This record gives sequence, C-alpha cells and structure tokens, in this order.
Amino acid sequence: MSADDRMRTPERAPRRDTTVPDVLALLRAELGERVDVSPASLEAARADKSGHASPGRPLAVVHAASVADVQATMRIAHATGTPVVTRGAGTGLAGGANTGAGEIALSVRGMDRILEVRPDDLLAVVEPGILNADLGDALAAHGLWWAPDPASRAISTVGGNIATGAGGLLCAKYGVVRDAVLGVDLVLADGRLLHLGHRSVKGVTGLDLTSLVIGSEGTLGVIVGATLKLRRLVPGAVCTIAATFPDVRTAAVASAAVTASGIQPAIMELMDASCLSAVHALLALAPPAPGQAQLTLQTDGPAAIVEADAIAAVLRDAGGTVAVSHDRAEGERLLAIRRSMHPAMETLGTTLIEDVSVPRSALPAMFDEIARIERDRSISIPTVCHAGDGNLHPNFIFDGPDVPPEIWDAADDLFRAALRLGGTLTGEHGIGVLKRRWLADELGEDQWELQRQITAVFDPTGILNPGKVFTP
Amino acid sequence: MSADDRMRTPERAPRRDTTVPDVLALLRAELGERVDVSPASLEAARADKSGHASPGRPLAVVHAASVADVQATMRIAHATGTPVVTRGAGTGLAGGANTGAGEIALSVRGMDRILEVRPDDLLAVVEPGILNADLGDALAAHGLWWAPDPASRAISTVGGNIATGAGGLLCAKYGVVRDAVLGVDLVLADGRLLHLGHRSVKGVTGLDLTSLVIGSEGTLGVIVGATLKLRRLVPGAVCTIAATFPDVRTAAVASAAVTASGIQPAIMELMDASCLSAVHALLALAPPAPGQAQLTLQTDGPAAIVEADAIAAVLRDAGGTVAVSHDRAEGERLLAIRRSMHPAMETLGTTLIEDVSVPRSALPAMFDEIARIERDRSISIPTVCHAGDGNLHPNFIFDGPDVPPEIWDAADDLFRAALRLGGTLTGEHGIGVLKRRWLADELGEDQWELQRQITAVFDPTGILNPGKVFTP
Repeated sequence: MSADDRMRTPERAPRRDTTVPDVLALLRAELGERVDVSPASLEAARADKSGHASPGRPLAVVHAASVADVQATMRIAHATGTPVVTRGAGTGLAGGANTGAGEIALSVRGMDRILEVRPDDLLAVVEPGILNADLGDALAAHGLWWAPDPASRAISTVGGNIATGAGGLLCAKYGVVRDAVLGVDLVLADGRLLHLGHRSVKGVTGLDLTSLVIGSEGTLGVIVGATLKLRRLVPGAVCTIAATFPDVRTAAVASAAVTASGIQPAIMELMDASCLSAVHALLALAPPAPGQAQLTLQTDGPAAIVEADAIAAVLRDAGGTVAVSHDRAEGERLLAIRRSMHPAMETLGTTLIEDVSVPRSALPAMFDEIARIERDRSISIPTVCHAGDGNLHPNFIFDGPDVPPEIWDAADDLFRAALRLGGTLTGEHGIGVLKRRWLADELGEDQWELQRQITAVFDPTGILNPGKVFTP
Repeated sequence: MSADDRMRTPERAPRRDTTVPDVLALLRAELGERVDVSPASLEAARADKSGHASPGRPLAVVHAASVADVQATMRIAHATGTPVVTRGAGTGLAGGANTGAGEIALSVRGMDRILEVRPDDLLAVVEPGILNADLGDALAAHGLWWAPDPASRAISTVGGNIATGAGGLLCAKYGVVRDAVLGVDLVLADGRLLHLGHRSVKGVTGLDLTSLVIGSEGTLGVIVGATLKLRRLVPGAVCTIAATFPDVRTAAVASAAVTASGIQPAIMELMDASCLSAVHALLALAPPAPGQAQLTLQTDGPAAIVEADAIAAVLRDAGGTVAVSHDRAEGERLLAIRRSMHPAMETLGTTLIEDVSVPRSALPAMFDEIARIERDRSISIPTVCHAGDGNLHPNFIFDGPDVPPEIWDAADDLFRAALRLGGTLTGEHGIGVLKRRWLADELGEDQWELQRQITAVFDPTGILNPGKVFTP
C-alpha cells in the first residue's frame, strides 16, 4: 500500500450494533449529567490547537470524574461498538484528539487531582487531567519538579503529555516524557483497568507496557492515572544567553558547535527571522533586523555561570552577538519570546506545524533543506527549533480551514528531507491525523503492520481513536 | 490460573515439522562451520551465570557473524518450527538464555563491532555481542560513555544488557538501559529485519517498540544492532565515601536518609554482614566486625567534593563510621569489594539470586522482612543492595544443582513482602525461568494475558525462547 493509497482510504467506519439514541440513553443512565450534548461542547470537541477539526460533531462529550466513569463509558462503547476519543485539554497539534460524527469524546480533564507526592521516593501519583504547570506549582512547594515541559505546559495536561510522548525545551539535558514516567493506569477498550509499570527506580518484570502507552495517542487505552518520576529542583543560578546571528544558517551552525563543545545547556532554542518578526509584532517589541535569527540558551546547576561563559565564547566564535544575563526574571522575559511562538503563528493564518527531528549534527543541513523548499515553492516556512535536541517546528501558513494540496506537497518534501538526514517525522507532537499519511514511509510496511496488530491486541474491535495514527 | 498451576505446567513443547537431522542439515547448508555441535559448546549453552541449567542439551550452537546469519537461522527455525534461544556472553542471572533439548542456541557474541561513534550527536551504533566494558574503553577515547553499568560489565554484552533491561550501580543518577537506547535492529521470528526507534534525541513516530524490546528477554526477536544514547564523561573529581554500621538496618536507614536529603550520589551500595564477610574472605582481607554492614558511595561532577562532605555528615548523624577519599584509585579499590559480591557468593554454594526492587523509602522495611524470613526459616540470606535505587539482591545459598522446595518457599515469601511494600519482582535481572512462576502475581492475570498476546504478534508460532518469562 503506497502513501497515496493511504491518503485516499476513508477513515475506518465504526462498527455499530446500536443506534445513536441508544448509546446516549445508555451513557445517561450510567453517567447522568456527566453526559454533555450542548452544541458548544460538541463543537469544541471537534478540534485541538492544530487549527484542524473533524468534519462532524461527536455524539456526546462525557466529562469523567473518576476511573469508574471512564470504565462505565468504555463498557458502553464496547458493547455498542461506538468509537471513543480520549481528550485532555485539547492542546494537541496533530489532530489526535479531534472527535467526529458517531464518536464519544471522553474528557478526563476533570480528573485533575494529585493523589500522592513522595519527596523521599521522588515520585508523584496523579490523575491525567491535571495541567502540567499546575502540577509544577504543587511540586515546587516540595522542592520537586516533573521535568517534561512542552511549550504548552500552562494549558496542556499531564495525561495528554503522556499520550503524545510530549517533549519540550529541556529535553536534551533533562529527558523526554518516556524518561519521566514509572507507571500508567490504563482502562482498556472493554472497560478493564490495568496497572502498568512500577513505583521503584528499577523494574523489568514482563514487557515495558508503560513505555508502549507513552506516545500511543489514545489507541491502546484511556490513561486514568500516572506514577511520575520526579527530580529535585535544580539549586543555584540560572544563566540566560541570548545571541543574534545575521542569518538562520549561521545560528544553526553555532548551535551545533555548542553541542559539539560538550557543554550541555538546559535550554537551547533557535528562532528564524520570520518567527522572530511575528513574535516581536505580537508582543509589540521593536522589530528585529532583517534576516536576523536568534539563539536563546539557559544553563543551570552548580556550574551554570562557568558554562554560560564558555557557551558565550563558542557563540561569539561562531559569529553571534551575545548577551549573558544572570537574572532569573530577565531570563524568563527572554524565554517568553520563544514561548509566544505558537500564538504568533496563529495571527498569520491557519498553520500546519511540522515537527521533524534530526540528529543534532544535521541541523544546519536541515535548515538548508528548508531554505531550498522555500525557494523551490515560493513560500515562507517560519521555523522555530529546539536546537539542543535537533527538533524543528517549521510552520506552513495558509488561509482557510483546510490544508491546500501544495502545502501537503511542501510538507512531504520537508519530511523526506528529514528522513534522508537520519531524522524522524515527529519529535514530540505525535502522528494524529495530520501526519498519518507518512507513518508507513518511516516505519516501513512490516513495522507498520506489526504496530497495527499490537493496537488490535489492546483494542480488538477498533473503537479507540479510530482513524488516528494508523489508517488501514 | 494460580501460581501453583503455572509451576506444574510443563514447558511449551516446540512445534516440529521436521526431524532434528533435517534442521541440522539445513543450518549447515546455509551457515557451514558457524554451526557448532561440539559437546563442550552444547554443554555451555545449557546454562548462564545463575548456576541453573536446562535439563537437556541444544541441537546446535550457531555462531552468527552477521545480520544475514541471524536471518538465515531464523528462516530455518521458522520453517521447521524449531525453538531458538538467543545468547550473548551467557552472564544472565535468571536462566533466560539457558538452552535445552530440541532448541537452537543462536549466539550473537561474535557480532561485536562498533559501527559508528558520533560525539557530536552523542550516539553510537553497535553490534549486540560487544562487551559493555569493551565499549566503555572505546568510547572513553572520545570522551564518551554509555551509562548502563551492570556489575557484570566486564563480561556481559550490550545486547544482553538490552535484552534483560539491565541496571547497575549508577542508575539512580544516570538512568537504566531504557534511558540509554535510541533504537534497536530486530530480526523477527520469521527472519525479517526491522529497524526500531530513531537517531534523534526526540522521536514519537508510532508506538515505542524500542522500549518494548528492552527487557523482553529474547521473546520478541533477535537484537542484531543498537543505537545507543551516550553521555560525555563526567569531568572533575570522584569522591568515594565508605561508611560502616553496627547492623544492616542502621545502614539501610542511613541510605534512605541520604536519598531524602536531596543529594544524589552516583553510586550508593549496601552490603550486609554475610556479604561483607564472604567478600573479605574471597579477597583475603581482614574479616569485618561481627554484624557490621557497609555503605559505599561515590559522588561525581562539579559538586563532587561538597556533596561528599554533605553525605558524610548525613551518614555520621545516622550512626556510621565514615571515611571520605578523593583518590580515584582508592575509590576503585573500595568498589572492587562490591563488585566481587557475585564471585564471593559462588564460593558458598549454589545461589538463587533474588532481585526485588522497592521504593527507596521502603528499604529499611524490606531489610526487616529479610530478617524476619531468616528468623522464621532458620536460613541466612546474604544481601547486597543498590541502595540508591531500592534494588536488593538477597542470595539464597544451597547445595547441589536444583533449588530445594524450602528455598522456593523462602523466595516466595520474600517476593510477596516486596510486592506489599510497593515493589517489584525483578529490578534488573529479568524473569527468565527462575522468576516466571511469580510473573502473573505481579502483573495480574489480565495484564499477563495481554503481554502474552503481544509476544504472539511478534512470534506467532512461539519459537522465540519458549518457556521463558511467560509459561502457558
């Protein structure tokens, strides 16, 4: 099956043993007022923050308040063959939680309690709906910290972070979600509850299903709880380094030089000229010089100051104009520019945000490829990049709700370039609906089929997020 | 199905469409002199370092020198329904690579090349048969390091470390194998080759099958290559702290106090009095005081000296007699005592090495349980412990090749105590044959069945390491 065939394949039709009114009646009988069919709620459940939406509206939004609510919903869905899309805060960027006609939107956003914090064991047990930033605030009171910090952390849930295998700004130094989850409680398609993983630092009993669930985008079960691996807050100074470069390629070469120097910054973010202009406009800052690209870095821990000075020297040698700040507030102000990237893109039009990740040494070559695609296709691709881990977010901007064919073609060109450079389709956003057409190109047909069979072990009747990630 | 039922269930009989001479003839026709039927090789393939062996001898040992050799072997095994047990250096401690009658021992020990080292991308691509310590030596020349360091690192292979999800001494600070592998090349039961994972820091394309393979103990495929996530060698001093305590419980409380203090040592090892005596005898050192237990710790990185002093203060407050050394050679000498633990146990008799792991705060309670089991059953259970991550190795010593029923009963008591304390059956050694009877007790029947179904997706005819981990 070619990628084109997959593009033409319609989404898997749900098995239906029951009529829609029956499903609603069953849900209401079990869950009462947690079943929400208000037009505003149904409309909101169609979309995430990718700017893309399902063609139709779901049957209902179920606002689960407990594991039992989730199990009841899944038992009804299983019995009636009704598809279920699990949703947190709806901040995904690949359409993975978009819910369409005939489907139940199962929201776990209301399950937002912290059940346990253990400073002595460096773990916390949480419900999936808690916001990443709210968890961070609660943990800080104990001197603790859950490292994954997607740019969306103020508005995205921990459950969503786990379901997408979210990344963030600190990954090169402090790891990705996979490194920070010890266990997951999972409700299966038929409503049974499994406890995956462990509470200890080490544990190799059986297959590592916790890791399998991380990044599975709602295709294996509903995450109803998580045991998180915590860190202690890093003591000492935080230094922020801002460096501007005459063009993006020079900035990319400079970032690769930092990585090659052996000093590990906590954060190293790159913004190209289009991004920088858009953010400066959004924040009402003075416009940057034409073509100017920016690197923003932070160092932390006991060697923060020494490392910041060493990095500044590398960046100057690479042609940068460099300023170092030891002030935390100033550092936050500089990083706010980076965190405003997504809202700034939204001001320009509808965006298709790509998420390719390449080995760090290939970063300059990847920016060359982006420049080539811009030239070849006469389009602008504003790009921001987690330069410390080689993860780029090139943004394709267009008018209207649907991705035009020429934008899909440009995205295809971009993805194939990343693959040629040893990279991957998605570093942290997931496949969802927006990237599913390329999944088999990266995995190969054999692995694609094997993965699909694994999802069928968890979900034999195909009711969990059908049409996402794997399209038959 | 109860644990007792599982204990009585015989190992799964291999499907056989062909006679033994046919299988050998097919292997020889494809692989020539790589097919080894010498009595010494067949005998060696029956056992690992657990001290336990399969009842019979395998059909043959195939010494694979390439991915193509592995694929050829698996195609023949698949066509003839012959079970295959993958082996590295045979240093496992759970019997996972023990090969018995009617089975092919597929050794990848000869595939020991380093294919690529990328300091700029902090990755290496290796074949599975390279010894962990040999890889370490080669990487050190680049200023690099693969963090997983099982106590067996001088004699165990990287492929075996991945297949068992091996741990080691440095896990609390520097992570386990799962944290240090980006991708795995896997030959499936039918001989097809899959490339799992990625070369970039981030990557969430599809399900995380790399993590699923880590710790799968030869049940999902044959690991023929790995892309490893490296660290830079940690610069600066290494400080070693040795502390003795009047009894093991005081030492355990002291180690929990170090963890709770928020200082993260690189290594924190605990040895009880029986272990310490046995190792001192093996190394011809003066005998320790009766009942004396020992903690050995190391700190590293830019704050090593400050942290060592702070840890020493915590240990003294907890009743320890403490010595701090800033000399690397002296530190290595102190750690050599810990690394001699397994050889020392071998001098006492046959050992059944347990591997329970508990949340770090539960360490003193777990030592209380071990003392209770020793009292109740009038046995000695020499115990060494990776105290930094709550992973204990209680050793049951007995005469002769087979575990006596009363030792199985004591091990059962121990495991159930660990589970009550929020722990797990195996922190780093794996299930193999020695712990399979308890697997469903920890996972629950539903998860056990789900995991078994996942193995069937990879290995539909059940030829990969049958009878290990999952017993039907």
